Amino acid sequence: MNHITHFIDQVKFNADGLVAAIAQDAESGEVLMLAWQNADSLRLTLEKGEMVYFSRSRQQLWHKGESSGHRQIVKNIAIDCDGDAVLAQVTQIGGIACHTGRKSCFYRQFSPAQGVIDNAPVLKDPKAIYDE
Amino acid sequence: MNHITHFIDQVKFNADGLVAAIAQDAESGEVLMLAWQNADSLRLTLEKGEMVYFSRSRQQLWHKGESSGHRQIVKNIAIDCDGDAVLAQVTQIGGIACHTGRKSCFYRQFSPAQGVIDNAPVLKDPKAIYDE
Repeated sequence: MNHITHFIDQVKFNADGLVAAIAQDAESGEVLMLAWQNADSLRLTLEKGEMVYFSRSRQQLWHKGESSGHRQIVKNIAIDCDGDAVLAQVTQIGGIACHTGRKSCFYRQFSPAQGVIDNAPVLKDPKAIYDE
Repeated sequence: MNHITHFIDQVKFNADGLVAAIAQDAESGEVLMLAWQNADSLRLTLEKGEMVYFSRSRQQLWHKGESSGHRQIVKNIAIDCDGDAVLAQVTQIGGIACHTGRKSCFYRQFSPAQGVIDNAPVLKDPKAIYDE
């Protein structure tokens, strides 16, 4: 059994065959996004060294950056104590993980005074990201 | 409608009424753990300023640190672009988030040479954490 298979065997996928996967900027530590992986996408991630998720809405493998160019190069990848979450430290190509054109997807911040505030700038117009 | 309710209304809970919640060390940026919250636990988190999760195994609210003392003081909390994940920056009391006595739960790292390696020390014997 190779080492990739050994690693994947430690993961406890949920009833839908998925595990939550966090992508974190390897340099700044900023949490970029949370998406989902099935066993195939986790295997491809480890083989290619780039994040491959499973799109729940499209029900298919989703090689991050395939349309936007905003690929995520894996530097480290780990699972948690009970094996039901993945954490990947990545280099975010283009500096944009979010489909809204922001660096991180976690830009909708709780504000005791206002409820929700937008805490991050749009770095690139989403239309420009996906029309290129 | 108060601001906490306004924030919670932006969250898309899954079919089980839960949302994935990431806790990140507010100072170092280290990702500490991923657990789950229902609307009640997210509300309590915002009201108390400490992380309250929902334990799927025990099917009840789980105020982090209630038995270990390792509470998580919330500094910032945000949701992602599609509202199905929560990211909290926290001060981790005791410097230990994991029930194994490690700082972070994400210590089982992929190694191309060995499969899985343990990348973090046990800072405190789990027996000592829960017997105190």
